[in-house]
Amino acid sequence: MGFVTSPAGSAKEPKQDRSRATRQRLLEAAVACLAERGWAGSTVSVVAERAGVSRGAAQHHFPTREDLFTAAVEYVAEERSSALRSLPGQSRAAVVSALVDLYTGPLFRAALHLWVAASNEEQLRGRVTELEARVGRETHRIAVELLGADETVPGVRETVQGLLDMARGLGLANLLTDDAARRKRVVGQWARLLEETLGSTSRP
Amino acid sequence: MGFVTSPAGSAKEPKQDRSRATRQRLLEAAVACLAERGWAGSTVSVVAERAGVSRGAAQHHFPTREDLFTAAVEYVAEERSSALRSLPGQSRAAVVSALVDLYTGPLFRAALHLWVAASNEEQLRGRVTELEARVGRETHRIAVELLGADETVPGVRETVQGLLDMARGLGLANLLTDDAARRKRVVGQWARLLEETLGSTSRP
Repeated sequence: MGFVTSPAGSAKEPKQDRSRATRQRLLEAAVACLAERGWAGSTVSVVAERAGVSRGAAQHHFPTREDLFTAAVEYVAEERSSALRSLPGQSRAAVVSALVDLYTGPLFRAALHLWVAASNEEQLRGRVTELEARVGRETHRIAVELLGADETVPGVRETVQGLLDMARGLGLANLLTDDAARRKRVVGQWARLLEETLGSTSRP
Repeated sequence: MGFVTSPAGSAKEPKQDRSRATRQRLLEAAVACLAERGWAGSTVSVVAERAGVSRGAAQHHFPTREDLFTAAVEYVAEERSSALRSLPGQSRAAVVSALVDLYTGPLFRAALHLWVAASNEEQLRGRVTELEARVGRETHRIAVELLGADETVPGVRETVQGLLDMARGLGLANLLTDDAARRKRVVGQWARLLEETLGSTSRP
């Protein structure tokens, strides 16, 4: 999974497998919980119950609430990045659509709750800031690769960054209402602008 | 003030003036409170104390917590829009900068807390959705005007919308860290792309 490493264990394989499966169930339940109930409604107990895991077992994996929810957002972000990286060679328009899709749906919703909570809670702030920077760099790296963008050309780096900023803003616009129809038109237009900009500067 | 109308009153001017001044102090205190403490930490009592107004007087103006905070975000958004509309004729790059500035700082922070809270709280959801749509339409209208964009040309409407989505995403990127240096480079690059796109299609 890259960033997310399982707890080290020299125990027998089946036990280690079970532990990994428990951890994964907790992480997935935590993201769903955060997306649906926000930070205020998200505790280790609620997630343990949702995952069908005892509170003690949950705390063995994640000693604090902050541990659980930052690990959960990172885990799902990394899952999404892996899926994105494995996309076969596609048109730039399709890549732009896939990038924008990262910012709609439960993962973005969960991450947004965590960011906003971190802006008022000192215990979360440092960890979420670091997490956001790491996930942001990784997403940028993947975007550059999939778009075939040559960042040595002046302006290309900022063009790709602006695209990801727009994707984040589109995710926010989708928070309260289904913005899919408008989003599709905006993404289509900006994919054309991007194509014109990157067209002549891309790597072969 | 546009959207925000003062409570109707046929009383003598000084009393009406006092009432309007109280209301304004409450609205400004509410936005600051929301930006600093988030939705969970924002109540009518906290705002009344901050504004130096009795809780009873605050409730006379705003019977519920939802009334106070949605009115506050709308009031400050309208103040910002007025300031933006009164900008003298400027270059497109300067207009893009001014538009992006709408999404950094306390107003955006306060609005973000309200949006995110509304995504989990039924009492807020309808009102905030309507508020967001109204403020969004007004901001779009102002952007089109200041940029001198001709929306009858295919793609121009979506170009302006995408710019505002990018501005919103840049606001989010500024939530936990000071993103000003990166933002300036991104905005500079996309202002150039926008100029190329709108250049030939703008109104005289």
